[in-house]
Amino acid sequence: MAYIELNNELPGIRGLMQYRPEMARPLNELAEILLRNDDNSLSRGERELIGTYVSYLNDCFFCQNVHGALAGHYLQCDLQQIDAIKQNMQETELPEKMKALLQVAAMVQQSGKKVTQADINNARSNGATDREIHDTVLIAASFCMFNRYVDGLGTWAPQDRNVYLERAPRRAAEGYLDFDLTR
Amino acid sequence: MAYIELNNELPGIRGLMQYRPEMARPLNELAEILLRNDDNSLSRGERELIGTYVSYLNDCFFCQNVHGALAGHYLQCDLQQIDAIKQNMQETELPEKMKALLQVAAMVQQSGKKVTQADINNARSNGATDREIHDTVLIAASFCMFNRYVDGLGTWAPQDRNVYLERAPRRAAEGYLDFDLTR
Repeated sequence: MAYIELNNELPGIRGLMQYRPEMARPLNELAEILLRNDDNSLSRGERELIGTYVSYLNDCFFCQNVHGALAGHYLQCDLQQIDAIKQNMQETELPEKMKALLQVAAMVQQSGKKVTQADINNARSNGATDREIHDTVLIAASFCMFNRYVDGLGTWAPQDRNVYLERAPRRAAEGYLDFDLTR
Repeated sequence: MAYIELNNELPGIRGLMQYRPEMARPLNELAEILLRNDDNSLSRGERELIGTYVSYLNDCFFCQNVHGALAGHYLQCDLQQIDAIKQNMQETELPEKMKALLQVAAMVQQSGKKVTQADINNARSNGATDREIHDTVLIAASFCMFNRYVDGLGTWAPQDRNVYLERAPRRAAEGYLDFDLTR
């Protein structure tokens, strides 16, 4: 049960978007351009992984499972592999560039001020472009918003993680704009 | 100097928006509907104050001065009064409802999970509606994004606080959509 009366039973951010659709529109436009737009050298899976990792660090169950399932869908890896990245990404076989970008994202999760020139240099020396660094920071920052929105209003989330896995292919196909909140 | 090459000299989020205008669009649409839309029982000044307070808690110099100047403009109070609210809002003469909403915003700034039923009950018992609580949480969450975006990429900010005071009336008149980034 959310802290406020949403007049719907939808979980997580979907209940909030149904409650305040005029604010859902720019939020979904932001998600679409950040996470799905094709004009990006980071793949959809890599961008969803950044969102998943920040949601994990913010302990947001709903977001880390929605976006973790999407990352797994795009990157063709299973829940166990996604969980391994969340819990100890340095020990995984992720490319060094992604590790360096996830490290930048982890600093953003704590505070914008935590990002240092050394974090940026490390990303660059592992092959990240300025635009990839920019997008990583904004994706991480946006999940600091989405996570707080979802948890700050006490929304509920399905506890069965398979629910998220089952929904991912449709969400990947439909995108964040104009999808049916109720499905 | 920002951490990445922005190819412009604009300060704070304006330099980032010039660098990545396709992402600036939904960010500005979000700011416009959250902070300026007339269909809201929280005044523009009250909403800017929530953003100012969260930016202060996140120690984001650029955002707390841009939005602090706007809050002062709308609420007809000076820099000293805005600073007093940031530093010790409980001791100011703000209405109890605003104090309770700023308390919710302060919890959101830390983490969505920090908001408790008691914080919500306190806002309600001081007259806040569910929609006002919703909007407060989303404004606070969105500034956790904006602040991280601005500081996570190491943008520069004018240090003379009068610069922000002088710009506020024009920004208040123009709004967040389609304003000239370079002025």
